[in-house]
Amino acid sequence: MASGKAVGIISKPGVDKARKLLPALVEWLRCRGYGVRYDDVTASYLGVSDGLPREQVPEGTVLVISLGGDGTVLAAARALGGREIPLLPVNLGGLGFLTALTEEELYPELERALSGELRVARRRMLHCELVRQGRVAAVYEALNDVVLDKADIARMIDIEAWANDQFVCRYKADGLIVSTPTGSTAYSLSAGGPIIFPSVEALVLTPICPHMLTMRPVIVPDTAVIRLVSRARDNAAYLTIDGQVGEPLLQDDQVLCRRSDKTVSLIRPPRLKFFDVLREKLKWGER
Amino acid sequence: MASGKAVGIISKPGVDKARKLLPALVEWLRCRGYGVRYDDVTASYLGVSDGLPREQVPEGTVLVISLGGDGTVLAAARALGGREIPLLPVNLGGLGFLTALTEEELYPELERALSGELRVARRRMLHCELVRQGRVAAVYEALNDVVLDKADIARMIDIEAWANDQFVCRYKADGLIVSTPTGSTAYSLSAGGPIIFPSVEALVLTPICPHMLTMRPVIVPDTAVIRLVSRARDNAAYLTIDGQVGEPLLQDDQVLCRRSDKTVSLIRPPRLKFFDVLREKLKWGER
Amino acid sequence: MASGKAVGIISKPGVDKARKLLPALVEWLRCRGYGVRYDDVTASYLGVSDGLPREQVPEGTVLVISLGGDGTVLAAARALGGREIPLLPVNLGGLGFLTALTEEELYPELERALSGELRVARRRMLHCELVRQGRVAAVYEALNDVVLDKADIARMIDIEAWANDQFVCRYKADGLIVSTPTGSTAYSLSAGGPIIFPSVEALVLTPICPHMLTMRPVIVPDTAVIRLVSRARDNAAYLTIDGQVGEPLLQDDQVLCRRSDKTVSLIRPPRLKFFDVLREKLKWGER
Amino acid sequence: MASGKAVGIISKPGVDKARKLLPALVEWLRCRGYGVRYDDVTASYLGVSDGLPREQVPEGTVLVISLGGDGTVLAAARALGGREIPLLPVNLGGLGFLTALTEEELYPELERALSGELRVARRRMLHCELVRQGRVAAVYEALNDVVLDKADIARMIDIEAWANDQFVCRYKADGLIVSTPTGSTAYSLSAGGPIIFPSVEALVLTPICPHMLTMRPVIVPDTAVIRLVSRARDNAAYLTIDGQVGEPLLQDDQVLCRRSDKTVSLIRPPRLKFFDVLREKLKWGER
Repeated sequence: MASGKAVGIISKPGVDKARKLLPALVEWLRCRGYGVRYDDVTASYLGVSDGLPREQVPEGTVLVISLGGDGTVLAAARALGGREIPLLPVNLGGLGFLTALTEEELYPELERALSGELRVARRRMLHCELVRQGRVAAVYEALNDVVLDKADIARMIDIEAWANDQFVCRYKADGLIVSTPTGSTAYSLSAGGPIIFPSVEALVLTPICPHMLTMRPVIVPDTAVIRLVSRARDNAAYLTIDGQVGEPLLQDDQVLCRRSDKTVSLIRPPRLKFFDVLREKLKWGER
Repeated sequence: MASGKAVGIISKPGVDKARKLLPALVEWLRCRGYGVRYDDVTASYLGVSDGLPREQVPEGTVLVISLGGDGTVLAAARALGGREIPLLPVNLGGLGFLTALTEEELYPELERALSGELRVARRRMLHCELVRQGRVAAVYEALNDVVLDKADIARMIDIEAWANDQFVCRYKADGLIVSTPTGSTAYSLSAGGPIIFPSVEALVLTPICPHMLTMRPVIVPDTAVIRLVSRARDNAAYLTIDGQVGEPLLQDDQVLCRRSDKTVSLIRPPRLKFFDVLREKLKWGER
Repeated sequence: MASGKAVGIISKPGVDKARKLLPALVEWLRCRGYGVRYDDVTASYLGVSDGLPREQVPEGTVLVISLGGDGTVLAAARALGGREIPLLPVNLGGLGFLTALTEEELYPELERALSGELRVARRRMLHCELVRQGRVAAVYEALNDVVLDKADIARMIDIEAWANDQFVCRYKADGLIVSTPTGSTAYSLSAGGPIIFPSVEALVLTPICPHMLTMRPVIVPDTAVIRLVSRARDNAAYLTIDGQVGEPLLQDDQVLCRRSDKTVSLIRPPRLKFFDVLREKLKWGER
Repeated sequence: MASGKAVGIISKPGVDKARKLLPALVEWLRCRGYGVRYDDVTASYLGVSDGLPREQVPEGTVLVISLGGDGTVLAAARALGGREIPLLPVNLGGLGFLTALTEEELYPELERALSGELRVARRRMLHCELVRQGRVAAVYEALNDVVLDKADIARMIDIEAWANDQFVCRYKADGLIVSTPTGSTAYSLSAGGPIIFPSVEALVLTPICPHMLTMRPVIVPDTAVIRLVSRARDNAAYLTIDGQVGEPLLQDDQVLCRRSDKTVSLIRPPRLKFFDVLREKLKWGER
């Protein structure tokens, strides 16, 4: 199997549907001559021990399947780290914005994908650098959003925002979201942000519970470098990437966000378009 | 001093203006025959050691002065615990909703107050019980709000809400605020809630970043008992009173909120009315 | 028929369902000894000529049935003009907030109602006076709302608002809604207002597209007199009652709104409570 | 004067400041060898009779000055109709988003502009076609927005929206705004839309008082063709361009909006950047 083509599988922990579906899926792939690589979770579902950490995507992987919800896709996207490997997101829970493919559609879509017939939506990632005392302390890639949030209970934080050295404003809020169009239907929407069609080349800055009535979401071109300076005292603010990883911030830490040169290639079912998912998922437009 | 009338002083830590103002204020009060009681913070400003914990309001106290901002008033209100002692809130920072009295107005207003000429706004508190496994585990009184909030980074929580055994809805959100009219201009406003005139006999349920587009703030009569059930796993949700005290919640903890029989008697300057403060503080109505 | 008990029927024009349902309903009522009175629309459905104008509710009427949607209930409520006659609102279209009763529930509910077994929700109306050059030029009663709106295309209007002679603010907006709790789920909700439980004794002022970012809905006690002064030039603003009747305003016209001493007695089905209707109607709380 | 270079002047009716400023401005221009062309309003201020209709911009015009507010700039932009003539917007009232130049800055900025030292912001227009029964019935260019609005009092209208033949949704609302980034700080903002930086290549669809709680502003790429179909009965909906011109719509009229190939070249003062104007004008970011 070492030399051949392989398919990676990443599953969400604790999902019975994944456990049931996996043996047949692995068999299906092996019959067609594909090696199968899996992460630790998937390995434990299969009762085997050769799972890899998620972020290790071995050579020869031609496609990665994510089994779970939007969160699993976000994790898989980070694991792929910008490699040009298509990601087939199978939805095992409620409909997700990133996981429109149902279990029933898995095999036909996989057949099509492995034969090279792909309908891929290329979603651009957001590159994020944490700069501490003048040095880059950490680097992240986000598919949805970068969030600066209060770490304490019921305390607002203080964030200065610039777009390309143009001062945007000083936010006094529970936090601030920098979201891609892909992330506009996730946390940014909950915080009052607009819905952004995926092909718009822009980012949105959406404040979380701003303590100023004049604050509104701001859309900037994705060619701008967004610079956020956290003025909260040490460890009172927290940086979160795609709602999944992150770290506490020190006072005067800077977070730089810019359009990444990495993309994620999501395999989309032919059936659903952007506003269709909105309608199903958000009851968009229903009375 | 033990037997006589006394005035209590509660100050905000770390405020230079309080430190400077205090010796003259204490002297002013003593000249007029009033004993002075102070909390630990005030004692340290005065360089003395007989400060009391804030919640100890000794017998004979005829009036309490709070020096600071709205937070100091909230702490003083909790310390008073419903006693019929008027609270004179002096504003040492930016204008607050509860602290409309400036430093310049302190002495004339104090003179008037001690002579019995009071313009008092009686604000009703919110009584909150934490019920864990069928038993009352804690009791609080809030002047502004009771908040159930996510304790983790970037995770929504799940809260069921009833008003008088009528099911309101299951909130999936960053949190939920139960606010008095007094609190409607505080955290609830940041989360998108309406402004409620202080004399309206109602409470508002304002969700924080709800993951459902249909959620709107809901106003219920203050005669209703609001019952919130936290469905988040142990320690993933947090209960906060007036943004100041609270505790982590266990799964299925219930939080009961009802109109308290306690009120706070705020001394108000003759100058400013409700919408005047809104205008000054929130740029209300300005372009 | 002149001396006996009668039931009034008010129907919505152009509704096929009403036309089909009416003959059996009239027959059902006559069999039980009730005279039937109808408005012009209902008369034309029945092919008879003795329909009365809606606002004429004859002596001896013990109950009025409205056949249509929320609009028909609003019209019937105005027709009743505060008389203590219960109103049975039958919903012939999509579910309404005021018309929760389906066609199937009509006869059982009517039986119960005529036998005196009523579950009535008493909804308080809003009294509105138009004062022009110091004189009362018109008087209205609203169940939902009083709206001052721009009459021209794409021009904002200028409205000063007072609550009990306390200046609230000068609105520059497309318009301003003064809504009862009953109306809070109608136009006010579309304009961004909160949901107000029917038993809250309050009114809400909700601006329509305010040209100031600081504007928020304001809740005032229903004991307050709300005074609106239209500063738009003659005929540039329009006064509308319940979205149905009204008139153009002249510059400096004043509109006074206060809690009416009139109520509407809505017969409610036992099945549905306030938040149940919200859930069905607004997808309230659904993802 | 016929053969030489000329400067056009367009003023707002009824503005005293324009009347006072004009004679000196005309003299200043003539001294420097520029012919002056003016619209009817400006001519009447000058007490002369050779004013032209606004939309006539004669040959040889090298620059147009607008004296007034944002509305005057919008009218001047339509008059220029995409010609490559720079527009110098002088602000004679409150600060505008398009008219950041004060009266004091007029002469220095004019001097610079006529000597070729221009700081021009090129703002792309929105092309709008009204299609009635399959034929183009009217064509407009908008700088800010295209609005479909209810023409009646207090009645919602029904609009279907497509982006590039992808169905967006059926709006039941008071209206729908299609706005450029330039227009995002105008009517769209009042209706709850986000602030869009001028260089973002996108349009926003912002509903006005939608009768569905799930409606949010939607950002689409400006390469999309937006097709709106008005389902309101004849004359119940109205089409408005930049809040200034328009016409009533018939049922099933279609309004097509797409990125125009025309731009407006606004001369900007060196002093103010986008967020500075937001701060001054909207109290953006102030408490």
